[in-house]
Amino acid sequence: MRFRLALFFLFFLILPAPARANAPLSEATETCLGCHLFSTPGIVADWMESLHANVTPKEALDKSSLEKRVSADQFPEELADRVVGCAECHTSNAAKHADTFEHQGFSVHVVVTPEDCALCHPTEAAQYRENIMARAYGNLKNNPIYHDLAQSINGIKVFQEPGMTTRPSDEETDFDSCYVCHGTPVEVKGLTLRETSLGEMKFPVLSGWPNQGVGRVNPDGSLGSCAACHVRHEFSIEVARMPYTCSNCHKGPDVPAYGVYEVSKHGNIFSSRRAKWDLRKVPWTVGKDFTAPTCAACHVSLLVTENDEVVARRSHRMNDRLPWRIMGLIYAHPHPQSPDTTGIRNRAGLPLPTELTGEPAAEGLIDRDEQEKRKRRMQKICLSCHSENWVQNHFRRFENTLRTTNEMTLAATRLLMTAWEKGIAKGPAQQDSLFNEGLEKKWVEQWLFYANSTRFASAMAGADYGVFANGRWFLSKNLQEMAEQLALLLQLQKKGKDPSSPELGESSPAIQKE
Amino acid sequence: MRFRLALFFLFFLILPAPARANAPLSEATETCLGCHLFSTPGIVADWMESLHANVTPKEALDKSSLEKRVSADQFPEELADRVVGCAECHTSNAAKHADTFEHQGFSVHVVVTPEDCALCHPTEAAQYRENIMARAYGNLKNNPIYHDLAQSINGIKVFQEPGMTTRPSDEETDFDSCYVCHGTPVEVKGLTLRETSLGEMKFPVLSGWPNQGVGRVNPDGSLGSCAACHVRHEFSIEVARMPYTCSNCHKGPDVPAYGVYEVSKHGNIFSSRRAKWDLRKVPWTVGKDFTAPTCAACHVSLLVTENDEVVARRSHRMNDRLPWRIMGLIYAHPHPQSPDTTGIRNRAGLPLPTELTGEPAAEGLIDRDEQEKRKRRMQKICLSCHSENWVQNHFRRFENTLRTTNEMTLAATRLLMTAWEKGIAKGPAQQDSLFNEGLEKKWVEQWLFYANSTRFASAMAGADYGVFANGRWFLSKNLQEMAEQLALLLQLQKKGKDPSSPELGESSPAIQKE
Amino acid sequence: MRFRLALFFLFFLILPAPARANAPLSEATETCLGCHLFSTPGIVADWMESLHANVTPKEALDKSSLEKRVSADQFPEELADRVVGCAECHTSNAAKHADTFEHQGFSVHVVVTPEDCALCHPTEAAQYRENIMARAYGNLKNNPIYHDLAQSINGIKVFQEPGMTTRPSDEETDFDSCYVCHGTPVEVKGLTLRETSLGEMKFPVLSGWPNQGVGRVNPDGSLGSCAACHVRHEFSIEVARMPYTCSNCHKGPDVPAYGVYEVSKHGNIFSSRRAKWDLRKVPWTVGKDFTAPTCAACHVSLLVTENDEVVARRSHRMNDRLPWRIMGLIYAHPHPQSPDTTGIRNRAGLPLPTELTGEPAAEGLIDRDEQEKRKRRMQKICLSCHSENWVQNHFRRFENTLRTTNEMTLAATRLLMTAWEKGIAKGPAQQDSLFNEGLEKKWVEQWLFYANSTRFASAMAGADYGVFANGRWFLSKNLQEMAEQLALLLQLQKKGKDPSSPELGESSPAIQKE
Repeated sequence: MRFRLALFFLFFLILPAPARANAPLSEATETCLGCHLFSTPGIVADWMESLHANVTPKEALDKSSLEKRVSADQFPEELADRVVGCAECHTSNAAKHADTFEHQGFSVHVVVTPEDCALCHPTEAAQYRENIMARAYGNLKNNPIYHDLAQSINGIKVFQEPGMTTRPSDEETDFDSCYVCHGTPVEVKGLTLRETSLGEMKFPVLSGWPNQGVGRVNPDGSLGSCAACHVRHEFSIEVARMPYTCSNCHKGPDVPAYGVYEVSKHGNIFSSRRAKWDLRKVPWTVGKDFTAPTCAACHVSLLVTENDEVVARRSHRMNDRLPWRIMGLIYAHPHPQSPDTTGIRNRAGLPLPTELTGEPAAEGLIDRDEQEKRKRRMQKICLSCHSENWVQNHFRRFENTLRTTNEMTLAATRLLMTAWEKGIAKGPAQQDSLFNEGLEKKWVEQWLFYANSTRFASAMAGADYGVFANGRWFLSKNLQEMAEQLALLLQLQKKGKDPSSPELGESSPAIQKE
Repeated sequence: MRFRLALFFLFFLILPAPARANAPLSEATETCLGCHLFSTPGIVADWMESLHANVTPKEALDKSSLEKRVSADQFPEELADRVVGCAECHTSNAAKHADTFEHQGFSVHVVVTPEDCALCHPTEAAQYRENIMARAYGNLKNNPIYHDLAQSINGIKVFQEPGMTTRPSDEETDFDSCYVCHGTPVEVKGLTLRETSLGEMKFPVLSGWPNQGVGRVNPDGSLGSCAACHVRHEFSIEVARMPYTCSNCHKGPDVPAYGVYEVSKHGNIFSSRRAKWDLRKVPWTVGKDFTAPTCAACHVSLLVTENDEVVARRSHRMNDRLPWRIMGLIYAHPHPQSPDTTGIRNRAGLPLPTELTGEPAAEGLIDRDEQEKRKRRMQKICLSCHSENWVQNHFRRFENTLRTTNEMTLAATRLLMTAWEKGIAKGPAQQDSLFNEGLEKKWVEQWLFYANSTRFASAMAGADYGVFANGRWFLSKNLQEMAEQLALLLQLQKKGKDPSSPELGESSPAIQKE
Repeated sequence: MRFRLALFFLFFLILPAPARANAPLSEATETCLGCHLFSTPGIVADWMESLHANVTPKEALDKSSLEKRVSADQFPEELADRVVGCAECHTSNAAKHADTFEHQGFSVHVVVTPEDCALCHPTEAAQYRENIMARAYGNLKNNPIYHDLAQSINGIKVFQEPGMTTRPSDEETDFDSCYVCHGTPVEVKGLTLRETSLGEMKFPVLSGWPNQGVGRVNPDGSLGSCAACHVRHEFSIEVARMPYTCSNCHKGPDVPAYGVYEVSKHGNIFSSRRAKWDLRKVPWTVGKDFTAPTCAACHVSLLVTENDEVVARRSHRMNDRLPWRIMGLIYAHPHPQSPDTTGIRNRAGLPLPTELTGEPAAEGLIDRDEQEKRKRRMQKICLSCHSENWVQNHFRRFENTLRTTNEMTLAATRLLMTAWEKGIAKGPAQQDSLFNEGLEKKWVEQWLFYANSTRFASAMAGADYGVFANGRWFLSKNLQEMAEQLALLLQLQKKGKDPSSPELGESSPAIQKE
């Protein structure tokens, strides 16, 4: 009761005027706010700025079809007339949530999931399920080759004469590394008592938490986290449309999308001009609401012209406009058909979308027709500002770069295969990791850093990322260094010596278990 | 006719009020807009925001001498009273343009060039012609040493036992690499028929297109692209003054100007404060319109004090305020006299502005007097906020850094010359590329990445770019690694073996032609 | 007299209205402005925007305790009623200032110091003195190991067959390198006559100037520079709270704090939302004035909730909320107790906070209790937006990362110690530098670049900085390369050869003096 009073008092003082007028709260949410205004004031204030706090689902439903931000056809009576507050999300689907716990008389769950969001946004949730990102956890964890790469990165090395051993990474390291972006499995490990300002309370103990990775495995069995891009608790479409959002996971040398964008003409116009843009508008009008694309404009958003002609439909299956996967694994290749990529096998039986020598896997990738369809979807956006001539030439140049970067990957791969064959390094034939030796690590950088960087630069006109900023300069230098290293080791080998024999280097064919 | 009607209708709906009132369009431009409002709405909307769309040349001419943005003394009658629209730029100088084609009754050209812009901005175009950037294509393509460096980067490598070969890069690769910034030659290769929403139309087929590189070779024979900095189609001086514009080409490890700026005090003030600045004002008043320089303020813009005293005259010959070229080729050196640097020869006959041992070329570089004049021009800008003492000390420290980074380049060069001499690597004496072997590539990074980074950091107070961010740490480490590599190879050589003998490494003295 | 007139005239024209009304200037400051409006207009304009120019100390004193920005209890009569202008700072404590000189009838000093600022801000100055940053000059210069590291970076190398020598860096190089951030000693070297627009004048000749490093040794004997963060001459708290300010020194691979922040969720929200925030408010209200922390929010600022409950007290002892020093020297370790770290010795007698094998030094570091206290201070800020569960798990994961990155440093160190022992490299036992050989430089990057990057990424959720952007990928790759290099050299050694024998590599046990 005293909370309700405090709430009343505080709302009067704190809530911005428009919020106060338009915010019919559910009783449950009022109760939440009674404490959380004090205990977590930051996110409450953040939420107050949100559309969730200021528009009821029913009002949202009344928008025209292009303006609509909800995709449900109707809402349960009890949801329709109250704004979307704490309780609406954190108590929905309670029975499905393994993380549901009794909290001040409510069945609350900690982890809000795409399944919860789907109550109002079912189309987006369904599209996202078809997004390769939704499977980012399993696609990494359950693909033996990618998992081995992750282990070669996260494993802990111990040097104790006469050599070095590696023990498998612990779970917290994995969760602090690859799985920050790929998503963790969030599991309930029990309940704990904790002293709070309101006395002792029980809370669930979660492993893999916190995490907002795109492929998070949630306690309700669903996959992904809408908060990866729709930052809590304002859930502003404006933030999701900012390139900064994508930079959370797409800036490193492996996927330098944001870095490339930043130094592109599009990025320049965004940085210089965005204060004049309207990034909240739905639909998003080309030339009026924005004058150069952000990541979302090309890859996700619903775009229209001034006279409401649709340029691109909204899609949360992010590859709907992508003919190619340019992140080499290990070559650029047509996009996988299914979001779950663990089933893909190349002819050699490896779980890779291409042969080690570059040819696309026979099954599991989209065909030429589908590629053309996706390319055309993307090009329609380009054509809002660029001529057909410009756009065709841009794509021809880009696809030429896919070929040449694949060639530079092939040269490195053939070199490595020679090294494996001649016993300079240990490879698949020796049941050894593909990623644990020096020469192999240079090979990884060839496709994962330098070929990727060159391709992203080509795709988005990021200039130096195709040359000196991890681009062609490094593609060429790295290959030359690999060749000289191999030549040296072969020469020493000829004298009856194997310098890679691991007196001190990584010794294990298999990773040594503790 | 129906376009004109549509145009009339749309203008009424779409054009912002001020534009509508002040926009006496030429008939030709009205016709363009009739279709392009629908076919390329983004750039039309962009242009509508521009001064071009809102001010007639005659109005522009009436400004006071400091405020004026046009440099022509007068305009042809037919241009003076209409705002600058599609037709004004895309049909000017039609006869000179090899890319002119008949399009809906007009002689239109695709590529707008500095020569076209010169109709209203002749002084800027003339200055730009004297800019070393205007020659960026030829200076790279026609200098055998720089061209060889480009080929060592862009050439495609093939590994086929027993060794690796390189084939020359294809044109599209070059255009996607170095020439994105340096500029491509844009050439007409014929005409093509294309189905459009208005039926079949003919368009020119252009090679080297799209491109906005600073040294683009245009179909009218002119050099450069104003759009490199003055981003289409708003052509806002605000954008050109933003450091993001320069970052398009000046961010990589070779020329880390933007990166350095970003972490400098000046960059900090820009990022923190620019929402309060006026970046559109001409002239640009120090302390009032902006409180810390962007790239343009120091290198290009017309700057005045509150009482309209000129601090710096506008110059599109970007090196007017630069005594030194700090981008080492291969040493920092006095700026070249002529924008065309292909004629420079050092005493050894190489097309380089310095000897391999660092001494400036005897001819073709500006002399001490000219250096002092340029330095003083720059310092006058510094003195708007800093004391004489501060400024003198800053430049003394900076010039000391030019000397020491040149010394660190000299040490690497002497080491490489020793390697060439002793047969550890193949150099000019063997008619071999200077850039194709591992040791040579480390040498390139010594001057192109690490010395450059250190110098840019010193010039613009970018701290860590002079130390750990590609600065002195790497100057020193790289040299040590070169020395150890050479020592190892010499030692192996002594035993009658040449480990650089290219069983597998790059084998060709000359690049192998396909 | 004519200056006073000009001043009067200009003030009327130039000063913004509010400034004009509220700016009772001291007579001395009026005199300064009389010339400096013309001679350094930029900084005068900057200062006019400042609170210093618009609020008198007395007015500042009248603010409520939470709102107050001054910490003095009272002010000398002559200061209280005049705004803080040129003279107030540049003539204070004149007798203590070795850089005081006679200038137009005033005893002016060039370098304004924390001691000068302490007249109004004594608490902040006192806290800053306890800040490890205040000692950044001496902590580097007077610690023989760190100084040797600096020399290995800044020393100038000369290659002259048969080998390479290093001469100690000159002072200007040091001042242009490490000491840009660490701070220089600013010393008066005499007076110089200089021609000015007002005739000949005398100015002090300063060495180590310009500099705003955090540990600057000032001509009044004080340490540090408030201008390192409180950028001159607006001294806006808004700028100090921007992450760009911290990026001036904390962006490189050694301390990638800004880079990590930029791609974190917090950084994303800042970049996307800050136009809506109020970064000038004191106190700073969580959720209302800002919705995600900047560097200052977590590390420095006074934070309150909407109902003025203090979340965190302001502290200029920046480590008050830091249990760990995660910048490895060479391991992550509990924070030093004293700002002067030169007294710390490990059990081996080395001036390091940990043993070479990682155990924290027995004395000089904060104990577990103090660590808990500091951690709790930080967590209280986190809890404004995150649940206890979230925060505890975050810190557990982070501390796990401290352990594992320390392990990866230990492996590299053990490997290097083996190399020293076996004569592959020269180490402490040979009285040789720890930092001059190739293997040693790789070792430095292990802890200084890769372990640091991984830890910063973990602390601030910067994803790829813990994996491919100088994170675990490099921790692992670097170690593998060290192991293979050692194995190769040991193998060659066995054949009676020592390939690190410095025919050409760095030869000196001690750095060779010129």
